[in-house]
Amino acid sequence: MKSAFSALAQRTKEPPISWLMNLTLERRNLISLAAGFTDNESLPVTATRKIADEILASAKSGRPALQYGSTAGDLELRRMTARRLAELDGRSYEPEQIVITHGSQQLLYMVAQCLCDPGDTVLLEDPTYFVFLGIAQNLGFHCRGIRMESNGIDIDHLERRLVAFKKSGEIKRLKFLYLVSYFQNPSGITTNFEKKAAALDLLKQYERAAGHPIYLLEDAAYRELRFAGDDVPSAPTSDRVIYAGTYSKPFATGIRVGFGVIPEPLRILITRLKGSHDFGTANFLQQILSAALASCRFKEHLTTLRRRYAQKAKVMAEAIAGHFPDSVQWEKARGGLYIWARTRVKTGAKSRFFQAALDQNVIYVPGELCYADDPSRPKPNHEIRLSFGGATEKDIREGIRRLGALLK
Amino acid sequence: MKSAFSALAQRTKEPPISWLMNLTLERRNLISLAAGFTDNESLPVTATRKIADEILASAKSGRPALQYGSTAGDLELRRMTARRLAELDGRSYEPEQIVITHGSQQLLYMVAQCLCDPGDTVLLEDPTYFVFLGIAQNLGFHCRGIRMESNGIDIDHLERRLVAFKKSGEIKRLKFLYLVSYFQNPSGITTNFEKKAAALDLLKQYERAAGHPIYLLEDAAYRELRFAGDDVPSAPTSDRVIYAGTYSKPFATGIRVGFGVIPEPLRILITRLKGSHDFGTANFLQQILSAALASCRFKEHLTTLRRRYAQKAKVMAEAIAGHFPDSVQWEKARGGLYIWARTRVKTGAKSRFFQAALDQNVIYVPGELCYADDPSRPKPNHEIRLSFGGATEKDIREGIRRLGALLK
Repeated sequence: MKSAFSALAQRTKEPPISWLMNLTLERRNLISLAAGFTDNESLPVTATRKIADEILASAKSGRPALQYGSTAGDLELRRMTARRLAELDGRSYEPEQIVITHGSQQLLYMVAQCLCDPGDTVLLEDPTYFVFLGIAQNLGFHCRGIRMESNGIDIDHLERRLVAFKKSGEIKRLKFLYLVSYFQNPSGITTNFEKKAAALDLLKQYERAAGHPIYLLEDAAYRELRFAGDDVPSAPTSDRVIYAGTYSKPFATGIRVGFGVIPEPLRILITRLKGSHDFGTANFLQQILSAALASCRFKEHLTTLRRRYAQKAKVMAEAIAGHFPDSVQWEKARGGLYIWARTRVKTGAKSRFFQAALDQNVIYVPGELCYADDPSRPKPNHEIRLSFGGATEKDIREGIRRLGALLK
Repeated sequence: MKSAFSALAQRTKEPPISWLMNLTLERRNLISLAAGFTDNESLPVTATRKIADEILASAKSGRPALQYGSTAGDLELRRMTARRLAELDGRSYEPEQIVITHGSQQLLYMVAQCLCDPGDTVLLEDPTYFVFLGIAQNLGFHCRGIRMESNGIDIDHLERRLVAFKKSGEIKRLKFLYLVSYFQNPSGITTNFEKKAAALDLLKQYERAAGHPIYLLEDAAYRELRFAGDDVPSAPTSDRVIYAGTYSKPFATGIRVGFGVIPEPLRILITRLKGSHDFGTANFLQQILSAALASCRFKEHLTTLRRRYAQKAKVMAEAIAGHFPDSVQWEKARGGLYIWARTRVKTGAKSRFFQAALDQNVIYVPGELCYADDPSRPKPNHEIRLSFGGATEKDIREGIRRLGALLK
């Protein structure tokens, strides 16, 4: 007897990261520089307590928070999101453009569902956010990588790929370019505005060959976690640009609220799809964030958080500078949660180095997990993603020291 | 130029209910007997305030609530869910069988995703939960109805359909039977245990012809909202039975937490899929429910809620008895949120009766929206779903009075 499972279920393999996470659970004294967890000590426990207390202090404000809301999300939260984005980008946004989601991950999934059939293609950064690669496997579309430079994707490489796609006919299956544009997971790179605009222009030039619109999905998950340098405006306003934002990382990951700024008619399709997924994100979470944004608490917490990550990033950078051999290439973080290091040894899950690190009770994310299965290049396997988000300063120092000793 | 949208996006039409909901928003004085909202006045504002305050009173309990959790859900909540189900069913459950979801709607969606390819078939009650029909449209599977009796689906009709499916070959595409087994939305009917067991037996007999397992998906969304009669055990333990439960309706719909009891290997596939959807339900919501279950607050609230719905159902029943003509068939509710009435007039969204009701500022859910597109029978169009969940007692009385006047 065959299984009853759909093609989607059958192609969805166990994500490599769950094996990593199990390792973390099994080992009590493990120093995890792998987990994408946010800083534990700075979580806004007191602020959330006050906000929840205020919302629930009266029936008038408490009941709407505990009742069903609308599928697209709380209007007040969408208004404040539009205002906040307008402040950041210096151009206007309307609440009607915005859909609130259960974390920005849900938005990424729904965008991919609405744009990609099995066999379609998505262009993305090489390396990229590995959970997105899981979505691709699940929905059955191909991912093809664009090389990275220190200020974002290599536009020339993007163009060469588009030329090749046009020649091979694959352009007809290309649906969007996915960019994690701020303090990228895993590389830490921020894409400058000019590159986003140039990429968008290039995509438009190939729409005729494609026979359909080609979108740019900008994942700004780490935008707010900036602790050095200036903010960069998001990709130009366009009916081809989808912007995925989140309140989970800048406020609290246990309060999972993300959002999308989505052009019509895609926004309508995504809202319908969300009607089937869950017909709306938990209202209580949305009201907590509305209240945090309306008061000074969101901004206050963000200030604390930025200071905290700046400090942890500094600790990690100092440890790396002190303990890693000079042959290792890496950059100081200016935001986000990660430092990405290119070593001279193989770093994959089955490598001697990974095993040696594990024997020393240190774990990192092997770089190869962050690369798409792209036949146009061998998969790089000498990199490691180091997170300063979840670990304590002491563990960061000690973990880096142990890795450094192994690298030498 | 064509659109870039996937087949899934293209087949997902606007749900009929959103048109109904827009009507509700547009009309200020509308009495809505349509909305599936829960009772507003009994929402557990004070209890949730206390729970949130307790969780967030210390860093020790507050931080885990505001941090990422695991994809399958908080272990303590899964333990308590297993214990609660064991109490209800008189047989044992393990936390490992349980996956926590963002409302039980998300579980329904993921089950359908993991089992159904476009063109597959699902059997369900005639009438059924209309949002499930939206999932079917979205994922492109067919829904075929099984007639209802006062104690659940007509087992003979189920058998006749299976025989016909075997003859036609459609049995090879049949993936599961979907039952809303407690105080069904929309009919209010509860399926007795014997019928669930009989249905499961029947499905098993046809697995050889199907060439794959045929599952039973039991949606127990309204199980806890029982205010008359005894509880019915859920479908027998089996590696073919998926149980979808929720804490949203018995506690607070703004705190969206559902769960599934899922047999292996399907549970593994659904957990993987959830890893792509959102990699875990918001931890804060889970911790609130854990705390509500661990204290007496969940049970206390449920007692209040049952008393409240019993009262509102009584008000609606009395109004119907007083105002509807004898020709209208209906039953007193024993749980859930709905009374289902069969009239002698057409009740569809384009009917004169619907328009007349709207002119009187009363809205209901036209019965025809609750029926699958099933070519084996004409779609019934003389029924109305009346909800006593969201409306006040005064509005219930007045709304029913107006509908009654129109029916006479």
